[in-house]
Amino acid sequence: MNPTRPIAVLGGTGPEGFGLALRWAQAGETVIIGSRDAKRAQDAGEKIKQRAGVSAKVSGDENSVASYAADIIVLTIPFEGHATLLKQVKPSIRPGTTVIDATVPLAASVGGRATRTLGVWQGSAAQQAAELVPKGVSVVAAFQNLGAELLNAEGPVDCDVIVCGDDPKANQVARTLAIKIPGVRAIDGGKLENARILEQITALLIGLNIRHKGYSGIRITGLPPSAYEVV
Amino acid sequence: MNPTRPIAVLGGTGPEGFGLALRWAQAGETVIIGSRDAKRAQDAGEKIKQRAGVSAKVSGDENSVASYAADIIVLTIPFEGHATLLKQVKPSIRPGTTVIDATVPLAASVGGRATRTLGVWQGSAAQQAAELVPKGVSVVAAFQNLGAELLNAEGPVDCDVIVCGDDPKANQVARTLAIKIPGVRAIDGGKLENARILEQITALLIGLNIRHKGYSGIRITGLPPSAYEVV
Repeated sequence: MNPTRPIAVLGGTGPEGFGLALRWAQAGETVIIGSRDAKRAQDAGEKIKQRAGVSAKVSGDENSVASYAADIIVLTIPFEGHATLLKQVKPSIRPGTTVIDATVPLAASVGGRATRTLGVWQGSAAQQAAELVPKGVSVVAAFQNLGAELLNAEGPVDCDVIVCGDDPKANQVARTLAIKIPGVRAIDGGKLENARILEQITALLIGLNIRHKGYSGIRITGLPPSAYEVV
Repeated sequence: MNPTRPIAVLGGTGPEGFGLALRWAQAGETVIIGSRDAKRAQDAGEKIKQRAGVSAKVSGDENSVASYAADIIVLTIPFEGHATLLKQVKPSIRPGTTVIDATVPLAASVGGRATRTLGVWQGSAAQQAAELVPKGVSVVAAFQNLGAELLNAEGPVDCDVIVCGDDPKANQVARTLAIKIPGVRAIDGGKLENARILEQITALLIGLNIRHKGYSGIRITGLPPSAYEVV
């Protein structure tokens, strides 16, 4: 992947998006933090530079501006803002963009628990996204199961990233981004419809974190080496 | 756990139940294979003895007879037979029995794919089971994510078993059984309602097995040692 292809992380001022942006900036990628508030996005970019080094290619801008400037858009927003944001930025998503959805429809979005998910009519947040992006734009589900605390800590993460989507090229873009995060193995998880399972796993992991006081992740065992994409 | 407490594995002539029964027989537990056909159950018991040794405490019987003789009942049946079997054996489940449900509501049950699950009104097969057992009998969800091929192979499995249920004592029974299988770490996964996630993970793992030609399992990373019950 060309490291100059800009990655817009919408919701990148939140802990999950910030952590992903940080990891990609550390890996030399060009990252644009997206936020409703351009100033907050720029501030988050500055914070990332403080950790990733002054040569890190990080900036911040309003969500639509960030989207238009990007070849890859990563959604790391609370589910309650998911459809609204996609409708808002839709005119700014250029053809050929890869949209990677890390959103989890936690019941916390409607005042419920973060250990439960909402039923999404399309099957998953990522499938909802697929309905809302312009034609010719592919949606990939990934990164739901990488906890923000792990991403924002130092050192490798002990987690696999399962990537689901209907466009093999877009899936490859997401897997290539995944393995930029030290410790991550990327695994092709099949069609976008499987996103519903990835999203629910997050609710399970949040429950484990609360119950056992940790920062859990998952590893998939038992597959041949060819199944695991690594650096 | 008292190793003389009999474990009835209903559906124990199928690959999943057979594999669990084999592992527990090898660990010195008393196992009764349950089947619609007592003769088939006995034959499966004989096969287990051939692998676990003549001193293995394994027998086979009709499902209701096996249930009545057991302190622990493990359900390893295709989802299409789940409710029917539970209604049939209900009068034979004694108070204080622990019912461990490993059933996954795969769409294959209605002619669909094994990589998709059916929606179960109660939320999961295990919650359906909880509605169908006699009062005073606890249902625990576990073992859905341990593939039959792994159980029937030699040596340790590279998998964690997440145990979900509403009765802490019954959950402990299931975790104690889980760690009798070499390689398994047992993890408290919270309430029975979380069974829906465990069941869906199986569909994901089946998809990974097909796509990547392997026998996948999951490990949970990032929790403190106290979260992992091991031998």
